Amino acid sequence: MKVFIEPIGRLINEFSKLPGVGAKTAQRFAYKIINMSDAEASGFAEAILNAKKKVKYCKICGNFSEEDVCDVCKNRSAEVICVVKEPKDVIAIEKLNEFNGVYHVLHGTISPLDGVGPDDINIKGLLSRINDGGVKEVIMATNTDVEGEATAMYISGLLKPLGIKVTRIAHGIPIGTDLEYADEVSLARAFVERKIL
Amino acid sequence: MKVFIEPIGRLINEFSKLPGVGAKTAQRFAYKIINMSDAEASGFAEAILNAKKKVKYCKICGNFSEEDVCDVCKNRSAEVICVVKEPKDVIAIEKLNEFNGVYHVLHGTISPLDGVGPDDINIKGLLSRINDGGVKEVIMATNTDVEGEATAMYISGLLKPLGIKVTRIAHGIPIGTDLEYADEVSLARAFVERKIL
Repeated sequence: MKVFIEPIGRLINEFSKLPGVGAKTAQRFAYKIINMSDAEASGFAEAILNAKKKVKYCKICGNFSEEDVCDVCKNRSAEVICVVKEPKDVIAIEKLNEFNGVYHVLHGTISPLDGVGPDDINIKGLLSRINDGGVKEVIMATNTDVEGEATAMYISGLLKPLGIKVTRIAHGIPIGTDLEYADEVSLARAFVERKIL
Repeated sequence: MKVFIEPIGRLINEFSKLPGVGAKTAQRFAYKIINMSDAEASGFAEAILNAKKKVKYCKICGNFSEEDVCDVCKNRSAEVICVVKEPKDVIAIEKLNEFNGVYHVLHGTISPLDGVGPDDINIKGLLSRINDGGVKEVIMATNTDVEGEATAMYISGLLKPLGIKVTRIAHGIPIGTDLEYADEVSLARAFVERKIL
């Protein structure tokens, strides 16, 4: 006897494609689905299809959107643009309720080792937004890995000659972390980027 | 702006229903779906619907089956019946490739506190299989929690007067575990169930 009957094996296989999901977890997820009511299971499947069908990218900023232009681009002034790598970074920042500007999603960062050059990410779109005028500041909020830093430097090099103020979000010791427990890289960075009081 | 657009929020909500999946993980799963190709995403949704539609329970043993009678019941002698709580227990045992008998899935255990009595689990089915004759041994492989033990005792009390040999799988120290690290309950049980060498 094969251990799993085909429909269960197939469902387990699909769940295994999710990030961080191994064989055991996929199995638990599959049992959960089988124990759902028909309506619940169809609702689940429908939500997947629905998301795939309805989620588009905003023409202007590249963020997730149901329409051609996202709510942020529609309703906010584009004086300050925050540049991020991925749509999920927008969500992380939006949750703060602190930033009132608009976003620009690069959908990647420059990574020559992976064959990703400046033309492979959405830098052109950013330049054309700036050419349209009205942009006063561009905040680079890419990650602190090598690719994120390189991308921030590259874009900054393009924008500065255009007279745009380019800033980078601050890095250092996380608030609430004791020096003793801070990671070395952040601590070193906190020294380099120290401010006059 | 609401943080998530509706189709993404809905998908996150569905993923949150899976066991052990919190808001963050559900979010990661949703992004994964959105980054899938259309074909992959439909395949995923289809696998859910397919599993829900095709997975039935075997009329005889109550295990998962694509047909009315499962492969195990079709192909094996029913002299030895292993009684388990849930279909997933069958899979755990089948993976061993050690047991050649058939199964009986109770779909629960007796638990008066939760309002589950002997009539609420599939004991009747077991009795009728035994009445059909040919059963020599019933192995109780329910869990070692209070409900599992109580159910094993209850069924054993029903079957013994019928002249059926009823056994319980052995409990004790797991193989490879040092005494020092064994949990107290298993260690105590290992003493109680010691065997003559």
